[in-house]
Amino acid sequence: MTKKTYEQLEAYMKSCMQDSAHDMEHIYRVLYTALDIADHEKDVDYDVLICACLLHDIGRKAQFENKKVCHAKAGAAMAVRYLTEQGFDKDYTAKVEHCILAHRFRKGKGNQPDSTEAKILFDADKIDVTGAVGVARTLQYGGHASEPIYTRLPDGRIADGEEESADSFFHEYRHKLCNIHEKLYTKRGREIAGERKAAAEAFYKSLYREVTGAFQTGPELLERSLKAGGQ
Amino acid sequence: MTKKTYEQLEAYMKSCMQDSAHDMEHIYRVLYTALDIADHEKDVDYDVLICACLLHDIGRKAQFENKKVCHAKAGAAMAVRYLTEQGFDKDYTAKVEHCILAHRFRKGKGNQPDSTEAKILFDADKIDVTGAVGVARTLQYGGHASEPIYTRLPDGRIADGEEESADSFFHEYRHKLCNIHEKLYTKRGREIAGERKAAAEAFYKSLYREVTGAFQTGPELLERSLKAGGQ
Repeated sequence: MTKKTYEQLEAYMKSCMQDSAHDMEHIYRVLYTALDIADHEKDVDYDVLICACLLHDIGRKAQFENKKVCHAKAGAAMAVRYLTEQGFDKDYTAKVEHCILAHRFRKGKGNQPDSTEAKILFDADKIDVTGAVGVARTLQYGGHASEPIYTRLPDGRIADGEEESADSFFHEYRHKLCNIHEKLYTKRGREIAGERKAAAEAFYKSLYREVTGAFQTGPELLERSLKAGGQ
Repeated sequence: MTKKTYEQLEAYMKSCMQDSAHDMEHIYRVLYTALDIADHEKDVDYDVLICACLLHDIGRKAQFENKKVCHAKAGAAMAVRYLTEQGFDKDYTAKVEHCILAHRFRKGKGNQPDSTEAKILFDADKIDVTGAVGVARTLQYGGHASEPIYTRLPDGRIADGEEESADSFFHEYRHKLCNIHEKLYTKRGREIAGERKAAAEAFYKSLYREVTGAFQTGPELLERSLKAGGQ
């Protein structure tokens, strides 16, 4: 890819992100991580990979405005329209389209990453929800969506995220974040995710210990104080 | 305090929180932590302490609706009005008022915690922004307020939070979270905060390492790929 093409695609990506610096940083982290992975893979089409990394989340706005929209499908369609308009090669455009469609692959739901570039983008995108970065992004999303850190079980105890089904950070960690490294396609991707796993796990454990700590002694101390009477 | 009075104050607190489970969990963590600290202090007035813990954030809604409002001042005024209406003792009400006013004390800004109960509430409230809980709450708040994890320096490098002044999680951690244990009044409070310090520090370091990691190799790999050409 020429520098001019890169800057053209970057400018289009930015125009779709509507000045959201937050979302754009994710794009650069994914791009740089993808290039790291690509450096360990053979026969990578860098033109396809770089373009797909830059454009993989351009459908986010459509999904944000309508939850029924899948940002991967919307983004792939937007990319095809843009690349075709700009005169990019049909075969090239189809390869980019596949990467964007497949970056959100979930088991049993079609659009599995087939090409090397699609597998690299998938891994780089998933790596950004592993480790401390994954924890930070999940908590930020939770704050935006008003999701709690934890929920309480019917008996008042704090749920650890494993058994209950209500949305919370603990639920997201135990059901998604802690297993992501197993879903990756590339060796280098699994290596990066593996290095990060301990940071997320340590954080979850500290957080669980801290929030349950106060609840272990508090109710009894309160009960004792209420029994002692006063006004 | 009788169980009946506790339930009455708890119900009033809940009515001010407008079903925000998120905010209410903070209240219970503060209450239980305060009771832990109180168990290590002498001559604690538990009636004042429990009431102040339950009501310390009832002014949050007023501050949320108008940023110029201080939730400690608004909450103290609401508590005085409510407790007076309900026929609570004048001296008792004044002690609760002081605790609520002083829980948000900042150096050089008046309303320093004077009583044992005010110092305990201050410490218990600050402890909830230490450790992993502090990290989680700060990130959730950042998501709600659309604040980024980090900002970039003019040269493109990721700012570590120490030097730059823009709002971000890194800035909040380096300027506030990492020094909170020094501000506490009680020995037990400093002990709890001290135990939690390592968890927050480890998380910040992991997060910084992860986000800067991709930026250390990425731009060079990109440059190399762009130089190689392609369409």
